[in-house]
Amino acid sequence: MKRVAVEKKILERNDESANRIRKILKDKGVFAINIMSSPGAGKTTVVERTIDSLKNKYRISYIDGDLDTDRDASRIRELGVDVVQINTSGACHLDADMVLKALEKVSLDCDLLIIENVGNLVCPATFDIGAHKNIVILSVPEGDDKVKKYPVMFNIADVVLLNKVDLLKFLNFDVGKVKKELKDVNPKAELIQISATKGYGMRMWYSFLERLILL
Amino acid sequence: MKRVAVEKKILERNDESANRIRKILKDKGVFAINIMSSPGAGKTTVVERTIDSLKNKYRISYIDGDLDTDRDASRIRELGVDVVQINTSGACHLDADMVLKALEKVSLDCDLLIIENVGNLVCPATFDIGAHKNIVILSVPEGDDKVKKYPVMFNIADVVLLNKVDLLKFLNFDVGKVKKELKDVNPKAELIQISATKGYGMRMWYSFLERLILL
Repeated sequence: MKRVAVEKKILERNDESANRIRKILKDKGVFAINIMSSPGAGKTTVVERTIDSLKNKYRISYIDGDLDTDRDASRIRELGVDVVQINTSGACHLDADMVLKALEKVSLDCDLLIIENVGNLVCPATFDIGAHKNIVILSVPEGDDKVKKYPVMFNIADVVLLNKVDLLKFLNFDVGKVKKELKDVNPKAELIQISATKGYGMRMWYSFLERLILL
Repeated sequence: MKRVAVEKKILERNDESANRIRKILKDKGVFAINIMSSPGAGKTTVVERTIDSLKNKYRISYIDGDLDTDRDASRIRELGVDVVQINTSGACHLDADMVLKALEKVSLDCDLLIIENVGNLVCPATFDIGAHKNIVILSVPEGDDKVKKYPVMFNIADVVLLNKVDLLKFLNFDVGKVKKELKDVNPKAELIQISATKGYGMRMWYSFLERLILL
């Protein structure tokens, strides 16, 4: 099929650009993470808290992918780190070419580069953007059936942050089910339970991230 | 650009198929809605409650789009209505060709056809699937900043169901902000506040939907 051939070509070109990103990051000694989730699962809040906690120990830069606004970028800019905004003009994911262009603008004089993807639990999983680790956030109000419903995303996750666990007491959500399904879909993924707004579990996430930065 | 040309062609072909769907629905006297939202905003629960409340007054059929499981279809099948499952095999949205094929299997001897799209607040908005009305669900835990962050989706909404309002008391969420931004992005869209699990606001939604069916 023609459409499939075009998609294959797009992904091949993307992989080439992702390899170029990896080379740039390696040359600069920068560790990069790609943060993905559904809309509203808490990506920007997790990033805010993480930067606020680690910015005195590590130099951090941030690239934000959004369809149409700079709301998330503005929130992070207030923390005093270097921020570059990618507006995808309606596109449903970041691709490696977009990130390559952003790398020309963002400060790579840093230890950690945080790339926040477009809020989407499907499409960003298909596009390698050259980051070292994929962080997928699942939030409690989304329901405990999401791992097997969105297996492509959970399959590429290195870490799953289960966010908004402060709402567990109000909702019918089985953490054991998520753990079990994640073990089936991707046994290597680490699961960390957090509440980014209340602070619960965040220290475990920070120390996990620090170990990665220092590797 | 070649990629843009291919995308244009895909959308043109999709529009042709959507027109064929409209013709089939018109011939059969079926009113169809396309339900879209982020993962976990409550599409299937809204559909469950709606079918349960209206199935004695109207004949209802249901088409479910999912990446990889038949979890939602199984939930609806228990209500005794005709159900057809579309597995998109990883694709991030339903398109009109998928729905056309499903129409060959689903009972069109009905008054209302409910089509539940893939959980994604971006891509499904671009693909007309021939439904009469687009119902977009936004849930409170996703945050009050989503209308302007995902304008393409809210722009095509005929009705926005603001779901999980029972959680408003636990979260920092400004309903006025959503109303204001929806007025800017799409002043014609109706906003109905509901809690599908607790029942709040559902009667308003049912009577709104009934008016549409009977038009």
